[in-house]
Parts: sequence; C-alpha cells; structure tokens
Amino acid sequence: MKSAEHRTGCHGDAVAAVDAPGGQVTQPHKQQLLKRLNRIEGQVRGIAKMIEEDRYCVDILTQVSAIRSALDAAALQILEDHTRGCVQTAVRKGSGDAAIAELMDLVRRFVK
Amino acid sequence: MKSAEHRTGCHGDAVAAVDAPGGQVTQPHKQQLLKRLNRIEGQVRGIAKMIEEDRYCVDILTQVSAIRSALDAAALQILEDHTRGCVQTAVRKGSGDAAIAELMDLVRRFVK
Amino acid sequence: MKSAEHRTGCHGDAVAAVDAPGGQVTQPHKQQLLKRLNRIEGQVRGIAKMIEEDRYCVDILTQVSAIRSALDAAALQILEDHTRGCVQTAVRKGSGDAAIAELMDLVRRFVK
Amino acid sequence: MKSAEHRTGCHGDAVAAVDAPGGQVTQPHKQQLLKRLNRIEGQVRGIAKMIEEDRYCVDILTQVSAIRSALDAAALQILEDHTRGCVQTAVRKGSGDAAIAELMDLVRRFVK
Repeated sequence: MKSAEHRTGCHGDAVAAVDAPGGQVTQPHKQQLLKRLNRIEGQVRGIAKMIEEDRYCVDILTQVSAIRSALDAAALQILEDHTRGCVQTAVRKGSGDAAIAELMDLVRRFVK
Repeated sequence: MKSAEHRTGCHGDAVAAVDAPGGQVTQPHKQQLLKRLNRIEGQVRGIAKMIEEDRYCVDILTQVSAIRSALDAAALQILEDHTRGCVQTAVRKGSGDAAIAELMDLVRRFVK
Repeated sequence: MKSAEHRTGCHGDAVAAVDAPGGQVTQPHKQQLLKRLNRIEGQVRGIAKMIEEDRYCVDILTQVSAIRSALDAAALQILEDHTRGCVQTAVRKGSGDAAIAELMDLVRRFVK
Repeated sequence: MKSAEHRTGCHGDAVAAVDAPGGQVTQPHKQQLLKRLNRIEGQVRGIAKMIEEDRYCVDILTQVSAIRSALDAAALQILEDHTRGCVQTAVRKGSGDAAIAELMDLVRRFVK
C-alpha cells in the first residue's frame, strides 16, 4: 500500500502496457495472468474435492505442489513485469532506490 | 496414483481418522482443511480481482506471497497427518520402506 | 538437542548403518556425506575468492545457487536416512509420535 | 559469464562501491560478505565434524538449515547490491532490459 509515488504510469514503457488514471497499473500480461489465476482457482477447488472424496494424501499433495509451481510462475511473471515497468521507470525518474528497496522486500518474501 | 497398497486404513490410528472402504483416506483434519482451501480459493479470486482493477503490482505480489504461505501450511498439515497415519501404519505392517520413499519424494518436491 | 530417547541405535536397521555407543548415530552414507560437505566447503571458499577478485555479481550468485542445491541435496539425504532409520525404529518401539513431530519440524524449516 | 557489457563500472554509484578496471565489480559490502562467507565455511566444516562424531541427525539438520539461511542472506545482499548498482546503471545507460532479464533468471533460481 506504500510507495504510491512510483505507481502512476509505471508500466508506461513496458511491452503492451496501458496506463490507467489514478495511480493504477495495468498488468502487461493481464489476460494471460487472469487465465492463469482462473486455472489455479480451479486447481484449489479440485484439491478440496479430492479431500471431500477421501482421496489418497500423496495424490493430494502432488496436486498441492503443482498449484505451488503455478502460483510461483504467476508471481515471477508479475515480478518481472513490475521490474521492467515500474522499477525501470522509477530509476529513470530518479526514485530508483525506493523502488529497488520495495522490490527486494518482495524477492526476500519469495526466497524464504 | 501409485503405492495403493498402503492406502487402506492408513489413518486408522491417527487422531479422529475414519477409514473408508476402497483404499480411501479420510483426512484427520478434513473440515479444517476444507475451510483452509475455501479461504485460499477466495484469496486467489481476490488476486484476479486486483489484477482486473489494475491494482499496484507490489500489493498483488504481497497477496500472492500470503497465498503461498497458506498453501504451504495446508500442505504441511496434510504431510504431517500422512506421516502420522499412513507412513506409521506402513512401518508397522512392514512396508515402511516404500511409504518412506514416497514421503521423501513429496518432501523433495516442497523443498525445491 | 532434545528427543535423545530415540537416538540410540536408531539407524540399526538402516542400510549399512552401524550403531555407536552413547546415543550416537552413524550416518548410513557417512563417507559420501563427508565428501559432499568437503565439496560444499570448497565451493564456499570459491565464492569468497570470486568476491576477493571482484568477479561479476551474476556469476557469484550463480555459484551461490549451486551451493544451495548441493546443501539441499545433502540435507535431503540425511533426512531420508533419518526417516528410514531413527523414525522407523521409533515407530516400531512405540515412540513414533515424538519422532514424527521432530521430523515435521525439520521439514517445516526446509520448506519455508 | 555472459552479459559482460553491463559489468564495467556498474556499482559506480552504489554505496561505497569502487570500480575496478577490466569489467570487474567490487562488491559494496565486500568485507562484510567475506566475513559472512568465512563464517559459512566454518559452519559447513562444523557439520562435517558432527557427522564424523556420529552426532544426532536432527541436530545436524538443524545446523544445515542455519547454513541455508546464512547463505540466502548473503545471496540477498549480493542481489540487492547488484540491483542497486549494476541493474540501475544499465537502466540509465539504456540496456535495462538485458540486465533485468539476467536479474529475473537469478531470482527464478532462488525462488524455486
């Protein structure tokens, strides 16, 4: 919720990015991401169904690990677009240090 | 899908576990797990909504990292119940080595 | 340091394991593990040398990631031998629950 | 070994960074990193000693997990300095896309 200052237009020069008014960020791969999240949502529902049906733990956990990979792939896509768009724009505007601090906080969260 | 031989009744001596016929496994924390998965499903939908609304990437990624933690917590719960139930039962029945090989495959998948 | 009670002889029926007196555990893959750790130690020294020589960050980080994989592989080997040996023995002796709680604490630490 | 073009002087405007001739990068936290790696090397040797002495698997794995955290912390430090220095410089010089692609490859390696 912080660092609103590098939001506006930060994907302006990224591939296929469109600026929205009011400090918003249109994801460059918006439709692809929505499709991915839709699929992940279905996978989560699928696991609930497996548990309902008393399926074998190992089969359930194999599915959970597949969701985790799908979620990581989506996160890495957003992270890359964010770096190419918002962070790069911030660097050019002279507020690179704040944007990079924020980026590293995210990376830290995903590494650990 | 493999290792069907240690499925039947493998949670039989775990806390609150009930055996189902036909090689099925009733999760000892079934209702709790279903509630968790329901919440995770809602969180995934929430992220799709954030992307729809062009919310800031960092806020989206913070949410993705929260889902990841929730998913890991669910996985660790299932893994622990599986070890206490199925693996322990297999060891007692003399088929511990196959059950442990299967368990380690799962752990490997979540560590990497 | 806890759970000393399932230490003694816990690898007694694991592949190539030899019990040592005094609650000790001889790793079934002792020589292989020592060789691995020796190699990892050399890799860590190699990174220090790269930093000394002002080598490019990306090349250094590629090496750090290789060490991390090597370390995880060693950990998974020890974890598997521990499960096959100590945990399995504990289950047979009736102290499976304590051994499994301890095992899950370890897994939790490596997953997160 | 690739991407040599954004090496030279890439930490030139980072905190305490000093450029070296010949496409080299002096780490801004060089002494601190060397100290950390030295400590990690000692920890790896400590684990080898624990295995030599037939110490309990769980105590060994607890130590391995501590090394992993120490290694991740060092990697995150180098990654942050690399982003603040090399990547930021590359963005300013107009070669940001290549530097960011390289950065994301690294992040991917540490997330998975």
